[in-house]
Amino acid sequence: MLKYQQIAAAIEKYIEDHALQQGDKLPVLETLMAQFEVSKSTITKSLELLEKKGVVFQVRGSGIFVRRHKRKGYISLFSNQGFKKDLEDFHLTSEVIELNVRKPSQEAALNLTIDENDDVYFVKRVRYINGQTLCLEESYYNKSIITYLNKEIVSESIFHYIREGLGLKIGFSDLYLHVGLLTEEEAAYLGLKKGMPKLHVETIFHLTNGKPFDFSKITYNYEQSQFVIQTNSF
Amino acid sequence: MLKYQQIAAAIEKYIEDHALQQGDKLPVLETLMAQFEVSKSTITKSLELLEKKGVVFQVRGSGIFVRRHKRKGYISLFSNQGFKKDLEDFHLTSEVIELNVRKPSQEAALNLTIDENDDVYFVKRVRYINGQTLCLEESYYNKSIITYLNKEIVSESIFHYIREGLGLKIGFSDLYLHVGLLTEEEAAYLGLKKGMPKLHVETIFHLTNGKPFDFSKITYNYEQSQFVIQTNSF
Repeated sequence: MLKYQQIAAAIEKYIEDHALQQGDKLPVLETLMAQFEVSKSTITKSLELLEKKGVVFQVRGSGIFVRRHKRKGYISLFSNQGFKKDLEDFHLTSEVIELNVRKPSQEAALNLTIDENDDVYFVKRVRYINGQTLCLEESYYNKSIITYLNKEIVSESIFHYIREGLGLKIGFSDLYLHVGLLTEEEAAYLGLKKGMPKLHVETIFHLTNGKPFDFSKITYNYEQSQFVIQTNSF
Repeated sequence: MLKYQQIAAAIEKYIEDHALQQGDKLPVLETLMAQFEVSKSTITKSLELLEKKGVVFQVRGSGIFVRRHKRKGYISLFSNQGFKKDLEDFHLTSEVIELNVRKPSQEAALNLTIDENDDVYFVKRVRYINGQTLCLEESYYNKSIITYLNKEIVSESIFHYIREGLGLKIGFSDLYLHVGLLTEEEAAYLGLKKGMPKLHVETIFHLTNGKPFDFSKITYNYEQSQFVIQTNSF
């Protein structure tokens, strides 16, 4: 982690440890600079990062304030950190149904902007939260970027491995979301009945250089699907 | 609009008019500065705004690239601009079911962080997209901030009026999202059957100063509910 990221993490931890609430004011810039013994530009970058993450908001001429949504038990629908990080308070496990190298479906090739003759890692998992089915996931990873996966990795956090193991920088993503009815196969994996509601989310994850590396299709168990999204001003 | 906002709008229009695709490179900073006859700091602010809006992405040392998701017919689930702006390609109308000043429900008071004796504007609307029901909306506006609403305003874009009419700055928001089954009342308004799936979204909208001004509860017609969310790197 870079210096400004470390400081951002420290400020975030401070907010959590002291149970600060939305609207609580943080110390002024000068105090933070002195406390962390860094320049104004570093502390500014830390605060910008925290603002992007929805941890603080800045009011021009007034200060920096804590931003914390109030509801417990909601899953952050997207941080680009993958689930694992959001769900640290929960017990999250995965059952790997399928892991192999194959040619992408036409749909996957299109979304990954690769050729249908290129290789992808295909991962199919059922994910459990506190022992209940959370979702059925099918992901296609561009193998020329995500060069290696194995069962151990995909049983845990794939995104953690991509960042820490492969040293790749995860950038922006596009999510497509719709509500529908469970197919028989989806219902079987989720332990629900065919025709019950589902939330279906397709996501194209890009590296910071703009290259799509993962096309994922997730079907959520609607009984477990309480999501929170924090959006920023612009 | 401030200068940098005007330029951001001009760049966005250029991208649309020329049907630029994701990954297409924009001219370098110096060219943009010369073209718009502005300083580096202004053009930088314009590009930062466009990045926040998901219109471009910047790759350090490499340039500025167009960001455009590829699927048509999807509704942006949150821009803080309100629907109207996202749905300019669609024909969006509203039927006002209820508009009055009242005391907030306990839930609304809590989410707006106001007292149960404070006044709110309550707005209940059914919104239609291309003649089909899109959603049933119930919104509570803090009357001490949104001082005036009438039927004409709520038949159109309330957010447009808040920005342009009241001159308020709309900031961040917290969305809570879940999937469930339509109640009889919801189904009736949406022209669907009780027990069919629904997407339910509760949003707390804040001004840039952090004050919550609108607590809205929206039930979407799942048949019309195709959403796109663009997230940024951080």
